[in-house]
Amino acid sequence: MGPNFILKGNICYCETPERFTIVEHGVLVCKEGLVEGVYQEIPEAFADFEVRDAGEKLIIPGLVDLHLHAPQYTFRATHMDLELLEWLENYAFPAEAKYKDAEYARKAYGIFVDRLRDSATTRACMFGTLHVEATEILMELLEKSGLHTMVGKVNMDRNSPDYLREESADVSGEATVEWIKDCKKKFRNTKPILTPRFIPSCTDELMENLKKIQLHFQLPLQSHLSENLSEIDWVQELCPTSAFYGDAYDQFGLFGADCPTIMAHCVYSSDEEIRRMKENGVFVAHCPESNMNLASGIAPIRKYMQEGLKVGLGSDVAGGTKEDMFAAMMHAIQCSKLRWRVIDDTLAPLTASEVFYLATKGGGEFFGKVGSFEPGYEFDAVVLDDSRLKDVEPVSVADRIERFIYLEQEEDIRAKYVAGKEVFWR
Amino acid sequence: MGPNFILKGNICYCETPERFTIVEHGVLVCKEGLVEGVYQEIPEAFADFEVRDAGEKLIIPGLVDLHLHAPQYTFRATHMDLELLEWLENYAFPAEAKYKDAEYARKAYGIFVDRLRDSATTRACMFGTLHVEATEILMELLEKSGLHTMVGKVNMDRNSPDYLREESADVSGEATVEWIKDCKKKFRNTKPILTPRFIPSCTDELMENLKKIQLHFQLPLQSHLSENLSEIDWVQELCPTSAFYGDAYDQFGLFGADCPTIMAHCVYSSDEEIRRMKENGVFVAHCPESNMNLASGIAPIRKYMQEGLKVGLGSDVAGGTKEDMFAAMMHAIQCSKLRWRVIDDTLAPLTASEVFYLATKGGGEFFGKVGSFEPGYEFDAVVLDDSRLKDVEPVSVADRIERFIYLEQEEDIRAKYVAGKEVFWR
Repeated sequence: MGPNFILKGNICYCETPERFTIVEHGVLVCKEGLVEGVYQEIPEAFADFEVRDAGEKLIIPGLVDLHLHAPQYTFRATHMDLELLEWLENYAFPAEAKYKDAEYARKAYGIFVDRLRDSATTRACMFGTLHVEATEILMELLEKSGLHTMVGKVNMDRNSPDYLREESADVSGEATVEWIKDCKKKFRNTKPILTPRFIPSCTDELMENLKKIQLHFQLPLQSHLSENLSEIDWVQELCPTSAFYGDAYDQFGLFGADCPTIMAHCVYSSDEEIRRMKENGVFVAHCPESNMNLASGIAPIRKYMQEGLKVGLGSDVAGGTKEDMFAAMMHAIQCSKLRWRVIDDTLAPLTASEVFYLATKGGGEFFGKVGSFEPGYEFDAVVLDDSRLKDVEPVSVADRIERFIYLEQEEDIRAKYVAGKEVFWR
Repeated sequence: MGPNFILKGNICYCETPERFTIVEHGVLVCKEGLVEGVYQEIPEAFADFEVRDAGEKLIIPGLVDLHLHAPQYTFRATHMDLELLEWLENYAFPAEAKYKDAEYARKAYGIFVDRLRDSATTRACMFGTLHVEATEILMELLEKSGLHTMVGKVNMDRNSPDYLREESADVSGEATVEWIKDCKKKFRNTKPILTPRFIPSCTDELMENLKKIQLHFQLPLQSHLSENLSEIDWVQELCPTSAFYGDAYDQFGLFGADCPTIMAHCVYSSDEEIRRMKENGVFVAHCPESNMNLASGIAPIRKYMQEGLKVGLGSDVAGGTKEDMFAAMMHAIQCSKLRWRVIDDTLAPLTASEVFYLATKGGGEFFGKVGSFEPGYEFDAVVLDDSRLKDVEPVSVADRIERFIYLEQEEDIRAKYVAGKEVFWR
């Protein structure tokens, strides 16, 4: 396929959280990698564009995963019996230590990237490990996959076992600079993102180093925030001068004021923390499955949306068990219903169109104009086939989308385009 | 396959909720439709039995679904925006009314039964509609499928629209007797179960009729209990003399004292209700996904298990979105973690082996000696293939079972046996 082409099918996307925009048997025009427009019939001006006909299938924007840990994919969906801090110590840290071995990393990341490529995800922000070589292997594989991603070599120089801790803030900083320079040479669609693991893993000195690196290279940042009650207490002990968890990042200028920043979880953000996130334009990566699996709690996403925060969804593999962003939408709806029922009935449950918005345009904003079929958006699209779900009577496009949220399976994803390039059509 | 044969593979089952019993590369002997035993090598005495080798695959007891609504399968995973009573009125009742048309019923139930057959479920208790003809069509299809099931023609003579309400208690009772007599003639593995929809749908006169029918035919019963707060208030209004919701059934002798009884949901059962359930041997069908989707709440299953109640799992299609009982296990674990975190931290979250037990031996008890590989149990088994999930290093059998809970997909179910009969091997 050249840079100009047309997809035909049942088109569905969200310009706003409130509703789906649906064009049945419509045409979606791609021009030079961007969405030119959505029409009922092919406009005269594009009559010579190549046409791919998806028939009765659904065409939606590619999904955006704002938070996941690629090295943890090996043990996804197992060891779901502990809370965050004990889970890190017992399962996540030992698993990540294995990526010191480049051969292991190539095999494990190979499996992960193949699955991510086959999913409905077109964009993702993810954690690697502290190992530069392994992280670059992950990035090579992602670059080849056709996805557009941001990947972080993790920084961690305290409060983890010897086998998974950088020797000092300077060693960590130097490795980070080496890695960033490599990335600039090697990758086009796989960008580095600064990744202090979380406050408990990073000394003040390391945070200061990262701020210098951020200002020099103008890099975005991702980390964790207010996920678990014990974690929050620990951060307060470690940073007694911080007014709240997010302030512990902000004291080093690493809370979104200068560069785009994602904070995963935000289950327990206080009003002060919410205000600061809003002022600084911090993106919340809502990871509902992980927050259940690690018994963290339920984030008040309705409140964040009402307050005007930027919110997207994350699979959080392997606190979450799967790379499937439809499942993340399902869990987001279900958790919001339980939160409404048992915690706070002033915050209405999330709807299908709202979680769809979060998984497309909401998180997509972190990548620029991504996650919608409005003109000028990057052309990220996936084609969905629900013919497996046999029906007695016709089902509306909106209902078919809702069914995908609950019933999606791997083989239902039939085609994927990222920034106008075909990743697969099968 | 004859009545005597052997399955080889990685065998896993739960005798008690606390732990998996695992025999790697073991043999499971079927003799005359019953489990003869599990061994490491084929015993001399069975050396002439035919052997089916599942290789590295997993062999587990068939799963038991204690609660689902077959006619609602058509709209599963859509219309998830209302609570129970409004959801019934707006979605479930109109969908069920269509089964007045036998041709529609044959198509819709055909799709449902095909899927149930392909799943890991070997036994299920389900609601049909109030229509005798459609319910018998469903039962015919189930009988052909090879599954063992209990199916209810629904009784409902009040508080529903004209188009889905029986004319009177006597009309409902007579139709029920006609249906039971037909079932005895027609079906061997598909048994009738009495099914008053729930207290709000049934007049006192109808409940009295059903009690007479139960005593005459000695039939088990299934219904709904303490699912939703508005429903519970309504039952109290309708039955002012009842001490609690379950007592409204018990006043008519329809709460397990005489015949085996399943009550679905029990999200809000009081201590009194719990005590009565225990005295009467009532089975709780825990339907966690439905309880999230309809914003009902989270049932205290740990408490029920501690109190010694009989508990199984239900998909509750279409309050639940799928027939997949692995998903029911996942939701049961996840909900129990949120309940522990936000409602009551004295009730520990459910573990993988506990929900596996509920979905096998726990619910299986309603069918007799079903749901385990202990000697003398009916030979219900499914073969699971997780080769789709590529691994860098070997994964333990227990971890592989845990992964199925979170990651199962339709094509992973490779073989199924019910009461010693092969349903499929593919």
